[in-house]
Amino acid sequence: MSTTLKTLPPELAVSEWFNTPAPLSLAALRGRPVFLHSFQLLCPGCVAESIPQVQRIERIFGHTDLQIIGIHTVFEHHAAMSPVTLGAFLHEYRIKHPVGVDLADEQSDTPITMQRFGLRGTPSSILFDRDGSVAYQAFGVEADLAVGARIAMALSNRTAVIGSQKSLFGADERCVDGQCKVSSQSTA
Amino acid sequence: MSTTLKTLPPELAVSEWFNTPAPLSLAALRGRPVFLHSFQLLCPGCVAESIPQVQRIERIFGHTDLQIIGIHTVFEHHAAMSPVTLGAFLHEYRIKHPVGVDLADEQSDTPITMQRFGLRGTPSSILFDRDGSVAYQAFGVEADLAVGARIAMALSNRTAVIGSQKSLFGADERCVDGQCKVSSQSTA
Amino acid sequence: MSTTLKTLPPELAVSEWFNTPAPLSLAALRGRPVFLHSFQLLCPGCVAESIPQVQRIERIFGHTDLQIIGIHTVFEHHAAMSPVTLGAFLHEYRIKHPVGVDLADEQSDTPITMQRFGLRGTPSSILFDRDGSVAYQAFGVEADLAVGARIAMALSNRTAVIGSQKSLFGADERCVDGQCKVSSQSTA
Amino acid sequence: MSTTLKTLPPELAVSEWFNTPAPLSLAALRGRPVFLHSFQLLCPGCVAESIPQVQRIERIFGHTDLQIIGIHTVFEHHAAMSPVTLGAFLHEYRIKHPVGVDLADEQSDTPITMQRFGLRGTPSSILFDRDGSVAYQAFGVEADLAVGARIAMALSNRTAVIGSQKSLFGADERCVDGQCKVSSQSTA
Repeated sequence: MSTTLKTLPPELAVSEWFNTPAPLSLAALRGRPVFLHSFQLLCPGCVAESIPQVQRIERIFGHTDLQIIGIHTVFEHHAAMSPVTLGAFLHEYRIKHPVGVDLADEQSDTPITMQRFGLRGTPSSILFDRDGSVAYQAFGVEADLAVGARIAMALSNRTAVIGSQKSLFGADERCVDGQCKVSSQSTA
Repeated sequence: MSTTLKTLPPELAVSEWFNTPAPLSLAALRGRPVFLHSFQLLCPGCVAESIPQVQRIERIFGHTDLQIIGIHTVFEHHAAMSPVTLGAFLHEYRIKHPVGVDLADEQSDTPITMQRFGLRGTPSSILFDRDGSVAYQAFGVEADLAVGARIAMALSNRTAVIGSQKSLFGADERCVDGQCKVSSQSTA
Repeated sequence: MSTTLKTLPPELAVSEWFNTPAPLSLAALRGRPVFLHSFQLLCPGCVAESIPQVQRIERIFGHTDLQIIGIHTVFEHHAAMSPVTLGAFLHEYRIKHPVGVDLADEQSDTPITMQRFGLRGTPSSILFDRDGSVAYQAFGVEADLAVGARIAMALSNRTAVIGSQKSLFGADERCVDGQCKVSSQSTA
Repeated sequence: MSTTLKTLPPELAVSEWFNTPAPLSLAALRGRPVFLHSFQLLCPGCVAESIPQVQRIERIFGHTDLQIIGIHTVFEHHAAMSPVTLGAFLHEYRIKHPVGVDLADEQSDTPITMQRFGLRGTPSSILFDRDGSVAYQAFGVEADLAVGARIAMALSNRTAVIGSQKSLFGADERCVDGQCKVSSQSTA
């Protein structure tokens, strides 16, 4: 007799939350798709491109049960991007969705959540399927058409149709152009 | 014993094709999703917005079996937008997908395909599901995130998740903000 | 006793005018600065960039005596860009300033005005000083900051400060990056 | 016998400079035109619009003797926009021109330079003529065409041609649309 065990991705590690009355966890959000946006407030590409994209996602998918979470993954200029500055930033840019401060690691410039998911820089994003597995992980900003397609798939509990011919048919390997899916392996 | 009959949308009426060795028909494309883009070459919103969007759709969904078709639905300035001018336009804007000239109606300024689908102006677009039914019909240019989501649904043979809470659950009524689905009714 | 003769640039050659009750000529406009915009209606760079720039120039400098003139310099796809199509184009893009159709040359694809000024393609622009001489001639679209500076100079009867160190000090040679001033020489 | 006395605008009050080996002063810059850009690093309009415009000004007018100065005029979220954060911001946005931190006022949220020039918010800009007088002062971001024209006038030692018919002819009153010139009066 065999049982299938699915290794789930790691949990968020957050030292402080904004825009939410209570801390969030990926575990507690199981059942809903989650769009996680990793950014730094002094990252020009985040301010000019990925944050506006997240705000478009909020507008277009606001009627669905997609949960959007920002995570402030500071890996440089730590003193310059304190939670005090982040709070004012969220206010000025009218960011209303929950944002967590990635937990600092005393041994490394790279904070804990960033390490756990192997994020290569900012902006990055991770889309989680309803079962908690990683549907897609990207470094940089992807085209809205592709992001919309992936979110639609996650909302309808399907695997991604975008990225390569392979992924259309549910291939295990989802690394495309350096953007890799965190492994979610099955064992019998 | 009952059989289900589905009324399909009308067929294209085209007087001349560009960028295809043989005429296309919706009937022959049954089984594939189709994105139909209705435009006029002197329509500023088409040139500035919807044509670039169609070209992004080609790029992002080029590896799938989505068929993109342009239809030149001239309902004003007929002498100014002849097929000769259209041919040069397609060349200059590097439009490579099949484009049909909507068949003129001697009794009306509005050409036949435009009449059949009740198109209100340009740009308009119609997304057809694999079974030939209309998944979505829009006047104007919609957000890429929403268009990407709808195409993903059509590719995976699902009904639209975007537009309203109702459509998420497959409601019959798909008119949202004045953009209406051409009816595809079932009878027993 | 010496007299100074200044060779003026050539005159426009126009077969048909739009948006003006009477034909225009550079000679009759002597005393005012003139911004001449050379375009084709099927030129993507004209539609996307230079025509919007001309419309910004109209808005910003509308209170001055700057005269804006468009010239439809068709050098390809002649049958596709007839005056009938141009008329509809000007209507749809809400172009209100005078536009002349560059006079066709039976011996060449390049029309007469385009030949006379040595225009290399579309979009191009020529700024004329109040004395009728060419202040600047450009192929392509220049930055608004530079265009604004040059127009201000023409309005105040000064030579250009932009383009190169040399031109700041009134050098005779004004060819910069392949964009050349049509010669306006002095003889005694 | 009469002498003309011209009241010059106030001096900058700066607590710390970036991107310059020595402090700058308007007095020491007399003889050169100066473009002063007032911003805050958490001001969305500054990041999206006025800072890119200043960088275009640097590129287009880099060969002239125009001096560009940024001044970080923090009037809100003071703890969030410390000099440490400003330093990282200048690094990340590749801002190379001199930037001064406007001197804090213990009695007010508004810093000293901002008070002295009556700046109403960020972004603001002030263009100084070669004689040290204010050629133009604006709140918000103006069109590049107008900014380019004003800078050209300042470079050639002329009064502004843009903004209103009046200013073309050197009127004393230069308040246009709420954007006012700090008075520079002559007495005999």
